[in-house]
Amino acid sequence: MPNPDDRQPADDDPPAVPPLDLDRCALAIDIGGTKFAAGLVTELGEIVSSRRIRNPQGHDPEALFAALTEVIDSVLHAAGIEPEGPLPLPAIGIATAAPMDRDAGTVSPVNIPAWRGFALRDRLVERYGLEVRMFGDAVAVAVGEHWRGAARGRRNVLGMVVSTGVGGGVIIDGKVVTGTTGNAGHIGHISVDPFGPKCVCGGIGCLEAIASGTNIAAWARAHGSDAPDAVALADAARRGDPVALATFRRAGEAIGLAVAGAVTLLDLDVVVIGGGVAAAGSLLFDPIADAYSRYAGLGYASSPRVVPALLGGDAGLIGAAAAVLQAESYWPHSF
Amino acid sequence: MPNPDDRQPADDDPPAVPPLDLDRCALAIDIGGTKFAAGLVTELGEIVSSRRIRNPQGHDPEALFAALTEVIDSVLHAAGIEPEGPLPLPAIGIATAAPMDRDAGTVSPVNIPAWRGFALRDRLVERYGLEVRMFGDAVAVAVGEHWRGAARGRRNVLGMVVSTGVGGGVIIDGKVVTGTTGNAGHIGHISVDPFGPKCVCGGIGCLEAIASGTNIAAWARAHGSDAPDAVALADAARRGDPVALATFRRAGEAIGLAVAGAVTLLDLDVVVIGGGVAAAGSLLFDPIADAYSRYAGLGYASSPRVVPALLGGDAGLIGAAAAVLQAESYWPHSF
Repeated sequence: MPNPDDRQPADDDPPAVPPLDLDRCALAIDIGGTKFAAGLVTELGEIVSSRRIRNPQGHDPEALFAALTEVIDSVLHAAGIEPEGPLPLPAIGIATAAPMDRDAGTVSPVNIPAWRGFALRDRLVERYGLEVRMFGDAVAVAVGEHWRGAARGRRNVLGMVVSTGVGGGVIIDGKVVTGTTGNAGHIGHISVDPFGPKCVCGGIGCLEAIASGTNIAAWARAHGSDAPDAVALADAARRGDPVALATFRRAGEAIGLAVAGAVTLLDLDVVVIGGGVAAAGSLLFDPIADAYSRYAGLGYASSPRVVPALLGGDAGLIGAAAAVLQAESYWPHSF
Repeated sequence: MPNPDDRQPADDDPPAVPPLDLDRCALAIDIGGTKFAAGLVTELGEIVSSRRIRNPQGHDPEALFAALTEVIDSVLHAAGIEPEGPLPLPAIGIATAAPMDRDAGTVSPVNIPAWRGFALRDRLVERYGLEVRMFGDAVAVAVGEHWRGAARGRRNVLGMVVSTGVGGGVIIDGKVVTGTTGNAGHIGHISVDPFGPKCVCGGIGCLEAIASGTNIAAWARAHGSDAPDAVALADAARRGDPVALATFRRAGEAIGLAVAGAVTLLDLDVVVIGGGVAAAGSLLFDPIADAYSRYAGLGYASSPRVVPALLGGDAGLIGAAAAVLQAESYWPHSF
């Protein structure tokens, strides 16, 4: 008699979906300047269920927290988990827009004025009864792209997000560089032009002051464009608008110079760039490669190695989940 | 009867010098652009005996190697070790001017034209019968200053050498950053001015093209100074010569911008600067601090943390010895 375990699946069997092992999943949260996202992520870095909203405006920190928990609860519901009971998950990973205070567990995202020193960690611990591991959203994108995206299998990586601001995360020998105060990765605030524009951080000629979505749009407007934002500007550039084209060239060249410096200093394998502005594609990546080749002279650094991110808006959630599911391989410290 | 081991030393006893445990010493070699040095270094990072020569000019690779072995032999002799016999030491550490090929064990220092692909490692193994561990001289200075100098006890460090060229080494979480091809640390070849001078590396506006001793002297000459080198230029600046003062200000500001970027990107504790040009002291360090404050805007990075090296010309030897005596704590890989 044949062993029933040996039988081949018949053509009309549904594909075998293993049951979800919630013990090996993470609840991941991504607090961006303009969006809240939550997701349930497996140990393979796959997103089982997720939800994203444009975060509410206004000045009520509690209304914002209620909006966030609604997003989280709906993700749990979709995975068949009752949000009110004890959650069968190991921990929560949070990627958050800067600045944050990791020791205090508070967040004060620049673009979320309602939250200033908001005790996000304690509030989530209180509500969901799980440990919370929190770090920067740009570092999360770098980790996400390393774990499951464009930098998979590489040892030394810079991950960048070019959107409202310009952020980043550095991975050396497969480990996240956290820095002395937990702030490593801020490539948006290195100066790429000693006589460049003043930056909101107080610096001069910072990459972010030239290449962020906000500053790209502002520079184009100052030069006669009527595009309201970087997306409209990319459309205009694709139609051949000379101001729009010059704007992306200027931003891309600033990025290329900064990235050439980072690769030269750290001898990196690859630089992965994501974020809304990076969606402009070759409008941005062509001038990045041109400037990279111009400024990276040493042999080991000279071939451009800048690639678009692969995970899109999911990179932050996947990176946040890594703080729960891959903490030992990525972090030099315990959370 | 009192135990003789318990007796207090009498005033006229000579100070107790423990015998040298050669098993725990390293033979350290520093191949600079203009000097050869060798030293015997203890496990505490102390130099027991050392010798330094200006390296011979000329085009005979063997004459150069003979000069190096003479330096090494005299150091061994001074420590009572017979250079011809089997050496009672664990290994040789070499800090060498770039470029080198670590896999092949060959060196081709830019300023030593007689050595192009010279098989330094194999030749030393053959002659002294010891394992040879070789890496870059600027990284050695960073390690030396971390082990025994100005960066002692710090976690995240950039060590720089400003002399004929501008080099560096990065230490993250106490470990040397080697990079994908072993070339990390080249802060001299990051661009600090997109419209700056062409660099020998092929880049534009590299820090080295502005702030190296060679380029400092050249810029001063082009602006009417008759100082033949950076040392004479520092003397002129101390006498109030305006071109000499402007030259150091320009170089220091370029260094300050580069260093502000590195601290911002990597969230470093301290930047240690040594090398001949750094001996100009406040002529260089004042404009470094000014530019640092101007370009580092983010809070965690904003206070200048640039200090002079403490070990002077010994840093390279002490760092080279660390590759033998402290390899596991500093290097992420085995040699």
